[in-house]
Amino acid sequence: MSRRPRVYLDWNATTPLRPEARAAMIAAMDLVGNPSSVHAEGRAATAVLERARAQVAEAFGAQAADIVFTSGATEAAALALAGRDLSSSNIEHDAVRAWTRCDLACDSNGQVAVDDPATTALQAANSETGILQPLPAGLAVCDFTQAFGKLPVAFDWSGVEMGLISAHKLGGPKGIGALVLKRGTEVAARIKGGGQEMGRRSGTENLIGIAGFGAAAEAAARDLADGIWEKTAEIRKVLDSSLEAGTNETIFVGKSAERLPNTSCVIAPGWKGETQVMQMDLAGFAVSAGSACSSGKVRESAVLRAMGYPPEQASCALRVSLGPTTTLDEVERFAETWTRAYAKVRNRAA
Amino acid sequence: MSRRPRVYLDWNATTPLRPEARAAMIAAMDLVGNPSSVHAEGRAATAVLERARAQVAEAFGAQAADIVFTSGATEAAALALAGRDLSSSNIEHDAVRAWTRCDLACDSNGQVAVDDPATTALQAANSETGILQPLPAGLAVCDFTQAFGKLPVAFDWSGVEMGLISAHKLGGPKGIGALVLKRGTEVAARIKGGGQEMGRRSGTENLIGIAGFGAAAEAAARDLADGIWEKTAEIRKVLDSSLEAGTNETIFVGKSAERLPNTSCVIAPGWKGETQVMQMDLAGFAVSAGSACSSGKVRESAVLRAMGYPPEQASCALRVSLGPTTTLDEVERFAETWTRAYAKVRNRAA
Repeated sequence: MSRRPRVYLDWNATTPLRPEARAAMIAAMDLVGNPSSVHAEGRAATAVLERARAQVAEAFGAQAADIVFTSGATEAAALALAGRDLSSSNIEHDAVRAWTRCDLACDSNGQVAVDDPATTALQAANSETGILQPLPAGLAVCDFTQAFGKLPVAFDWSGVEMGLISAHKLGGPKGIGALVLKRGTEVAARIKGGGQEMGRRSGTENLIGIAGFGAAAEAAARDLADGIWEKTAEIRKVLDSSLEAGTNETIFVGKSAERLPNTSCVIAPGWKGETQVMQMDLAGFAVSAGSACSSGKVRESAVLRAMGYPPEQASCALRVSLGPTTTLDEVERFAETWTRAYAKVRNRAA
Repeated sequence: MSRRPRVYLDWNATTPLRPEARAAMIAAMDLVGNPSSVHAEGRAATAVLERARAQVAEAFGAQAADIVFTSGATEAAALALAGRDLSSSNIEHDAVRAWTRCDLACDSNGQVAVDDPATTALQAANSETGILQPLPAGLAVCDFTQAFGKLPVAFDWSGVEMGLISAHKLGGPKGIGALVLKRGTEVAARIKGGGQEMGRRSGTENLIGIAGFGAAAEAAARDLADGIWEKTAEIRKVLDSSLEAGTNETIFVGKSAERLPNTSCVIAPGWKGETQVMQMDLAGFAVSAGSACSSGKVRESAVLRAMGYPPEQASCALRVSLGPTTTLDEVERFAETWTRAYAKVRNRAA
C-alpha cells in the first residue's frame, strides 16, 4: 500500500534546511581551524565566519560589526534583556517574557499598547497568529524572529536598539541566531572567557551553523525580493476561505489585522488544540496548537488569552504556518481533512 | 611547483571533524521538525536528540538525564560557575577564570594546591601543557574539555559535582558542548524561555551539532578503548626527543608530570612564541603559542607564569598538539624545521 507523503505546515516552529544552507554547512565541515588561531587554518575559519556575518547583516539591513552571533534568539533575548526589567506584553515569546514585566495591554486585534518604547520589548510578528506590530521609534528590544526572512527588515532604519533573530525560522539550522545592536549600544557579556564576538559573547564559534545561517539569510532575502511570499499569501487566502466555508463556528484570529504572509490561526470551539494536532498528525499533517513547547504538553494559548479570548476558546486554537515550498494542493488537502474531522467532532457533541 | 600539504599540529585548539560526526550531521539535516513539536516530525527530531544524549553520556560515563547540552564548554562554565565565587587557579581556561577567584597556588610541575574541593573549580588537563590534575573527591566543578576523548573518564565515579565538556576537542563540531551534573545537583538556568533541557537551558536545540557531538563522542570513546592514543604518545615521544636533541636551551614544560598523550609544550628562550607560530605557519605547520585566543594576539602565557616561569620565558612558549591521525613523518618534519629555525634565531642573537 502506498502512503501519501507527509505535509509539513508548521514552518513557524521550524523550517526545513535550505539547500544553500546545507551546501555552506557541508563546505564548512572541511575547515580544520579555530577562528581564534592565527595560522592559515585559523584564518580560513575566520574568513567563513566573517563572510556569514556579512551575509546576515546584508539580509537584515544592518552592519556586520553589530551582529553578535548567539546560540539562537532565546540566548539573544537573555543577552538583551536580563537585568533590565523592561516592559512587554503576554503575547511575547516565553524567551522574552522570562526577563520582562508583562505589563502592557494587548487589544482584541493583537495590538500592544506601548507606553515608553525606550523601556519596552516588542515583537515584530507573533509566532502563533502572525499578527504584526508597528514598531515605534526608539524601541529598546525587538524580537524579529518570525519576521526576518518573511518581511523586508531594514534594521538600521528601524530605530530599534537591539534586535533578536534566529536562523532556523528562515531555512537555516537550529541552534544559531544573533543579537543585533544599534551602533553605539552595548551589552554586558553573559558568557565570558575567550572574548569572541568582540567580547560580547565568548566561546568558540559554531562555525558550521554560522555558515548555514549566512547562506540561509542571503537566500531568504533573495526569495523575499523575488516576491516568493506573495505566492504563499495567495495560497494562505485559499486556506482561510476553505476553513471558513467548511464551518460556521470557526473563529479566525487576526483576520482583519496585518499578518505575516504564511500564518493562519483558527479557533475551533469544542475541539481542543491538542486533539486537533494529534488527529491531523495521524492524518499526515504537521500543524501546531501554538508555539512549539518544550514539554511536549500543549496548554491554552497565552497569546490568545492576552487578546481577550476566554480559556475555552484559547484552548481550541490551531496554527497552520506555510513555507515557500508549500503547494496549493497540500493546503487544500489539509483544509478538507480538518473540516471533515471538525464536522465529526461537532456531530458527536450534538 | 608542487606544494607539500599543510601539517596540522594544533589539535588542542580544535580538531578536524570526524567522519562519523560528519555523517550524523548530514543525516540530521534531513530532519524537518522542532524537537519541541508533538507531531511525527517533532518526534523524529527528539529521537535524534536523545540518541546523541545517550551517546555522550555513555562515552563520558554519565547518565543521559544528567547531560545539559550547551553551546560549548564556555557556556557550560558560565552555567556551572556564575554567582558562586568558587576558588580556582591561574592555569584554568579564561572561561573558568572569568567566574572564579584565582586564588589557588600552582607548583612548578603544574599541580594545583586544592584546599576545599567543594568550593573549587579545577581542570582535568591543561590545554597548553597537557599536564593532568589528580581530581579530589567532591570537586565542585571540573573542566574536562581537554581530557574527554583523550583519557578514560567515568564521570559518575569521579565524585565531581559538575563537569564541562566540548564536542570540538574530540572530533565533533564547534559550538556544542555540555554541562554534566551529578545526580541531584541542580543549576539555575541562565538562558530561559521554552524550558528545553529539563528547564536548565532553554532555546531550540542545535540538533545538527548535537547529532555530531553524539557521533564524535561515541567514536572517540571507541578509539580510546582501541588504544589509539598510545600510538600518539609514541609519536609524541619522538617529538620531545627530537626537539631536545636539536638544542640545549629548550625548556620542556611538564616533562616529568603526568600529561595528555598528545601535547608538548616547550620554551625556546629568545624566540617569541608569536614569532614561532608565524614562522612555522609560513613553513606549513599549524601550531600555537598557547590557548587559542580570540583577539588573534598572542600574549605571554598565564599558565606558564602561574607555574613560576619568568615573563621572558613564558612569552617564548610553543604548544604542539597531535591527533590520532598525526603521523611520525609529520612530527619529524616539524621538529627538523623548528630546530633549524631556532638555530638561526640563536645564531643571529649570538
